[in-house]
Amino acid sequence: MGQHYKDIAEIALKRREAAIPKEYLLPQESLSNLPQNLTTIPRTSGHFTAGELEIIESNAEDILLKIKAETWTSLEVTKAFSKAAIVAQQLTNCLTEILIPEALARAQFLDDHLAATGQVVGPLHGLPISLKDCMVTPPHPSSLGMACYANEATSEETVLVSILARLGAVFYVKTNVPTAMMMMETINNVWGETRGAYHSGTSCGGSSGGEGVLLAMRGSPLGVGTDIGGSIRIPSAFNGLYGLKPTFGRFPVYGTKSGITGQDFIFSNNGPMSRSLEAIKLYCKAVLSTEISPWNLDPKCLAVPWRGETITPKERKLRFGIISDNDGEWSVHPPIARGLAMAKKSLEAAGHEVFEWAPTDHPEIAHEMNSSFHTLGGAAILNLTEQHEEPVFGSMKEYEVTHKKGEGNLGPTKLREMITRRNAYQKAYMDRWNATAQDGQVMDGIILPSSPWTAPRLGFTQKVFSVNFTGVWNLLDYPVCTFPVTFADKDLDHARTSWTPLNEKDAALQADYDPEFYHGTPVTLQCVGRRLEDEKVLEMTGIIADALKQHL
Amino acid sequence: MGQHYKDIAEIALKRREAAIPKEYLLPQESLSNLPQNLTTIPRTSGHFTAGELEIIESNAEDILLKIKAETWTSLEVTKAFSKAAIVAQQLTNCLTEILIPEALARAQFLDDHLAATGQVVGPLHGLPISLKDCMVTPPHPSSLGMACYANEATSEETVLVSILARLGAVFYVKTNVPTAMMMMETINNVWGETRGAYHSGTSCGGSSGGEGVLLAMRGSPLGVGTDIGGSIRIPSAFNGLYGLKPTFGRFPVYGTKSGITGQDFIFSNNGPMSRSLEAIKLYCKAVLSTEISPWNLDPKCLAVPWRGETITPKERKLRFGIISDNDGEWSVHPPIARGLAMAKKSLEAAGHEVFEWAPTDHPEIAHEMNSSFHTLGGAAILNLTEQHEEPVFGSMKEYEVTHKKGEGNLGPTKLREMITRRNAYQKAYMDRWNATAQDGQVMDGIILPSSPWTAPRLGFTQKVFSVNFTGVWNLLDYPVCTFPVTFADKDLDHARTSWTPLNEKDAALQADYDPEFYHGTPVTLQCVGRRLEDEKVLEMTGIIADALKQHL
Repeated sequence: MGQHYKDIAEIALKRREAAIPKEYLLPQESLSNLPQNLTTIPRTSGHFTAGELEIIESNAEDILLKIKAETWTSLEVTKAFSKAAIVAQQLTNCLTEILIPEALARAQFLDDHLAATGQVVGPLHGLPISLKDCMVTPPHPSSLGMACYANEATSEETVLVSILARLGAVFYVKTNVPTAMMMMETINNVWGETRGAYHSGTSCGGSSGGEGVLLAMRGSPLGVGTDIGGSIRIPSAFNGLYGLKPTFGRFPVYGTKSGITGQDFIFSNNGPMSRSLEAIKLYCKAVLSTEISPWNLDPKCLAVPWRGETITPKERKLRFGIISDNDGEWSVHPPIARGLAMAKKSLEAAGHEVFEWAPTDHPEIAHEMNSSFHTLGGAAILNLTEQHEEPVFGSMKEYEVTHKKGEGNLGPTKLREMITRRNAYQKAYMDRWNATAQDGQVMDGIILPSSPWTAPRLGFTQKVFSVNFTGVWNLLDYPVCTFPVTFADKDLDHARTSWTPLNEKDAALQADYDPEFYHGTPVTLQCVGRRLEDEKVLEMTGIIADALKQHL
Repeated sequence: MGQHYKDIAEIALKRREAAIPKEYLLPQESLSNLPQNLTTIPRTSGHFTAGELEIIESNAEDILLKIKAETWTSLEVTKAFSKAAIVAQQLTNCLTEILIPEALARAQFLDDHLAATGQVVGPLHGLPISLKDCMVTPPHPSSLGMACYANEATSEETVLVSILARLGAVFYVKTNVPTAMMMMETINNVWGETRGAYHSGTSCGGSSGGEGVLLAMRGSPLGVGTDIGGSIRIPSAFNGLYGLKPTFGRFPVYGTKSGITGQDFIFSNNGPMSRSLEAIKLYCKAVLSTEISPWNLDPKCLAVPWRGETITPKERKLRFGIISDNDGEWSVHPPIARGLAMAKKSLEAAGHEVFEWAPTDHPEIAHEMNSSFHTLGGAAILNLTEQHEEPVFGSMKEYEVTHKKGEGNLGPTKLREMITRRNAYQKAYMDRWNATAQDGQVMDGIILPSSPWTAPRLGFTQKVFSVNFTGVWNLLDYPVCTFPVTFADKDLDHARTSWTPLNEKDAALQADYDPEFYHGTPVTLQCVGRRLEDEKVLEMTGIIADALKQHL
């Protein structure tokens, strides 16, 4: 046995505590009688200057323009977001490593460079970017919410981190994740639990949960998450954000710390999260530029630069499939159903076609994915957590079960059968998509829930766990972007009545719906494109967002 | 126990025998006193008409032009190649399924279509294309050299086969492979042994060995092979051919019958083989066209159409690394060393740079690859061959060893460690390639042997087995094309003298070199490009071929 996890956590928590600039903290008296919706606090607390509020409420693309024009310095922008991040930390417990001193030095360096040369170092010059904990920024630890790594210095920078630095980014905070990044809410035995921004009694999602709530709290203009079953999209959904899970191979992944190192049955992937879709696009264009050529830095990265305007002609009417109620196993909560209806109505009003899309194979695909994580991840995770006597969270019990089965849990034959089934699911979905062709034009995209909930009650997903709406696209390797639609409304979103649950878990999920409790939580959906159509997914997401604005 | 493999083989052999048009066979008296070099027979036998000889000695690109111009009919072209294929079969035992009647009907259909419409159906209109046995053409069996599949009807056509048919190809023969396609010479318990074309006492290579010798014998203008460790390039080398192993994902693979179904630690891939580099290019352009969009037919296929002229400016001098003697574990036979020196000299005379490239990690990478095949393939292959009491060939004994270890031979931890090592090899090689940069230009390609031999004695690779020169590029997933340089020459290629073997197997390999025996066997090298630079690899191969023509 190694050191007890509680002793390790104490060291990590003290380090984090010490790294917090005390002047950024909300005074103790502001912490009593907090509103349920924490996102209002920066503006209402009186803790931020008008200038700081202007900065933290700006979108990344505008901040970059203002820094380039020397209207704002990177230093003042970094300070404002650092302060907002510390407030978010106080309110939600969303941070792990705090890098503010080096961020300020870096921002000053970039300001000096711009002043001296008149040139920005790259398209992200001076922008604070928050990083999910698994993005390695040496020598800071990258805990993955596990005691074994919590205080361990790192040495090899993640390729994506090096690229963002070359592009001009400023790194100032890293954000919390669940244990091994394998839960859909953010809780672990080192840093504890991270709460939601729009309702502090709900989950911020996971695994990029710290990232999600930090963005919603205006503690970051742009963040980087990772996604293997929904880990970018679930927190993006619960925090009302745009979040892109790209096709694997578009973005460099090398050197990202993994919860299940070497697992490649389902590819782990990374992508941007933001309140602004423009910021997402700007990030993609910058990272996948020929100047950066990430395909020469990561062997898994494809030499496919980011493309503009892939929908031609631009005004072409699109054809969307929609999954408007359930995926064959999980029925959505009423606010999500309303959001789907809103998206359909708006798109139709804008002249697009929206038809019901059958979730054929979705439950089977999700089962295959979940089961592969348990099979491949059991020993990987438990061998590490057991060393420090970490208790196992409810939704991770299956990892323990497969771990106890030992290495015999997987042999070459079982592995090859898994891979063969996965490939057949991929082929069948492709063929179904091809079969939507009308006059030579196939369905453009699929709109569906990100999750059956808006944002579940804290702790609820330890019992009722579903990453199926997101996970299907990880196994299929299709690009997906989330988009916010509206908020749950107790006056509009009544509990289902004359309705038959699809199964016991579906019944439990729906029984949990309470219009009063969930009031005000974000309704965020997904837009899916075909493999490698990442650019088109963002264009479609923009078209949907515009339709929602114009036609409601 | 199922049926004994000998009984199964008897049925298969009878089927093949019955499918041979007797009028295509060389008369029995021509089969005595055969020359060592079988490739001379079509021309010297008197068995072919002048018109047939003109057809079978033409390159695919010229045949296509003549069919399009209605100078030749597809029917007469198909008949000529069918006849040459049957002669090749008589002399080398290179065929499995013979589809001549349906090929003739198909050729007639294409001729009628052209006559009626004035239009070809596609860029491969009327061209006979030979297929490696694993390309499924229902209902014909696809044996993979295994008794279990030898007489089993098939139902699902390989995606690539459907594509080639759409492009206008005519399928007339399928070609022999070693058991499960996992040896480097072509022998199995169903169809027996396939011999070499340039020297009937040597191997035709494997696993696309039947394909290689058929092409060398003028029994096909263009063939399709598959490659997981060298299976396109080794037979291309032993038969003096151009053979492209593309980057995985460029060409559709779905529905190809696999020796180790579901194995994806090393991707199995397919590609064209031909005596003509132009034919290889034409094939790539046709298959990877937007008209075909194979990326909508195979989920693993990348939406990257074939690109022209990727070397810019066109006259730019190139920088090649060369591995001119050994890979750290295997020293080449003298004719190969001379071929490498010829390539270097010719390229330098043409103004290109050629520098020695260290084979860093090559032995380790090859070991990782070989070991993964044993680990993942042991049960996959032996479970099938044991059913029919098939004896295990010498070079496949390791599969039996791992099979006997049972499924415990691989667990999730070992799998994840394998994957992690593989990915690290890929990253390190990429970084080494980046480090060759001079004035912003990295090394363009690597020239190296395809194999330590020209073509080994029949049976020799059952004891001394090395696919290391080819296999490294499968694990790294780099595109490679073979190119013929010259032939072994007893007067020029003397045995090594003052030389220290690198290890025992290296000594055994070199001890096997005999200038008299190997005289006349083809010297064929490889040109390697970076991942996804498939087009550039073919352009570089053309530049090398031109340099060899002009400067020797």
